[in-house]
Amino acid sequence: MAGTDKSQDSLAGGPAIILVDPQLGENIGTAARAMLNFGLTDLRLVRPRDGWPNERAISAASGADKVLDATQLFDTTAEAIADLNLVFAATARDRDMRKPVFTPESAATRIRERAATGDRAGYLFGPERAGLDNNDVALADSIMQVTLNPAFSSLNLAQAVLIVGYEYFRQGDATPDQSFEPGPTGFASKQDLIGLFEHLEGELHRGGFLYPPEKTPTMVRNIRNMLQRAHLTEQEVRMMRGMVSTLTKLRGRGQNDET
Amino acid sequence: MAGTDKSQDSLAGGPAIILVDPQLGENIGTAARAMLNFGLTDLRLVRPRDGWPNERAISAASGADKVLDATQLFDTTAEAIADLNLVFAATARDRDMRKPVFTPESAATRIRERAATGDRAGYLFGPERAGLDNNDVALADSIMQVTLNPAFSSLNLAQAVLIVGYEYFRQGDATPDQSFEPGPTGFASKQDLIGLFEHLEGELHRGGFLYPPEKTPTMVRNIRNMLQRAHLTEQEVRMMRGMVSTLTKLRGRGQNDET
Repeated sequence: MAGTDKSQDSLAGGPAIILVDPQLGENIGTAARAMLNFGLTDLRLVRPRDGWPNERAISAASGADKVLDATQLFDTTAEAIADLNLVFAATARDRDMRKPVFTPESAATRIRERAATGDRAGYLFGPERAGLDNNDVALADSIMQVTLNPAFSSLNLAQAVLIVGYEYFRQGDATPDQSFEPGPTGFASKQDLIGLFEHLEGELHRGGFLYPPEKTPTMVRNIRNMLQRAHLTEQEVRMMRGMVSTLTKLRGRGQNDET
Repeated sequence: MAGTDKSQDSLAGGPAIILVDPQLGENIGTAARAMLNFGLTDLRLVRPRDGWPNERAISAASGADKVLDATQLFDTTAEAIADLNLVFAATARDRDMRKPVFTPESAATRIRERAATGDRAGYLFGPERAGLDNNDVALADSIMQVTLNPAFSSLNLAQAVLIVGYEYFRQGDATPDQSFEPGPTGFASKQDLIGLFEHLEGELHRGGFLYPPEKTPTMVRNIRNMLQRAHLTEQEVRMMRGMVSTLTKLRGRGQNDET
């Protein structure tokens, strides 16, 4: 699923993503791509194992240059989060520490609430296999944990970053839950729709479908309710009328038969 | 972020994931892992390019055997979705077709609503580069589209499947937005907490911190309000009292000085 346009993204202000002791350059690159899909651009690295810049990261980040070019390096986690005032430590396994645990959704909600008053947030992610050191977790306000299938929990770094970015973006996104584009003709007027109903029902009646007579009103309503659910466009009503005509011509009867 | 336990997952009934003309075996494998993180186990393949079973898929799916072992193969999309009655076509680019477009969140909501009355749902994903053919989109009820950064939109197959699975799982997940485990001693009683307040304030007062006298009540309330926000556990109150004692001993004054 790929598309890229050059329009200005108005997604400034999202949380920083801080990778502590990241091991594979490739994972830094895929994390950068995951970030940029959701408009996150503030990537910080603490002691990347294979140094920086990193060819594998650049290669894996293909296209997400904006993130790589702005990546900051730090020697310690404390320095990496110094300017932030709300930090979530991303952990997979439970820690025996007195720390609140947020879901990705509630962490993103908290970040957006605090951003409204100028606060700056970030997420800490630890090295791929070991996860964050408890001392780094203690530098964060709270823990963020993605609830997963207890029988199989295996998110990689980029996927965890993706979910964090997805939740942050979703909560500020104005995309309607559901949208439908009726096209240039727009939705059919009820006049047009009722015209279709009468045309169709006339032909069905002629063909003996609306039988027995005492059931006809119910059957007609059923057909009309069904077609209403399709929310036909004006163009579709015309197409339906053409379909009815075609079918009835094939049947050997013209539209001139009396009902 | 990895952990796996063998407890029975009660996540049956989730949507099927149908990959149409998947190209790389590796992507099938990573999609299977993405699914199982969120309890989705019904994977269906239509004309996998490199056949099935597929070594690269097995390798990339490492651990998600449950999904691979149950994977079904089909020659056509129509056959793959025959038993379903709610299908979303996942697309990245807009299609000039009269189809409702859902967000991942609203699609998952719709699926759960319909599941309550016994309906079975699925998501169609097209080949990695080209995406779904419009004829396949026409076999679905609606489109599901992940809104992304317009300046950079590049989700791979496993990531799109991950987001679908994440939303489905999240909407059925009872994990509280925020949780905190106070440990074996539980939260401090107000008696213990007020004991700490009085101990601390006594020492601060002795040290000349609560000055001038007309500001003392406000300063005391500020300190108490700050400490209240920490929601101290009983153990932490004891620790704080020990810290206060330690600091005041270092100061050279014992606890026997008169306030």
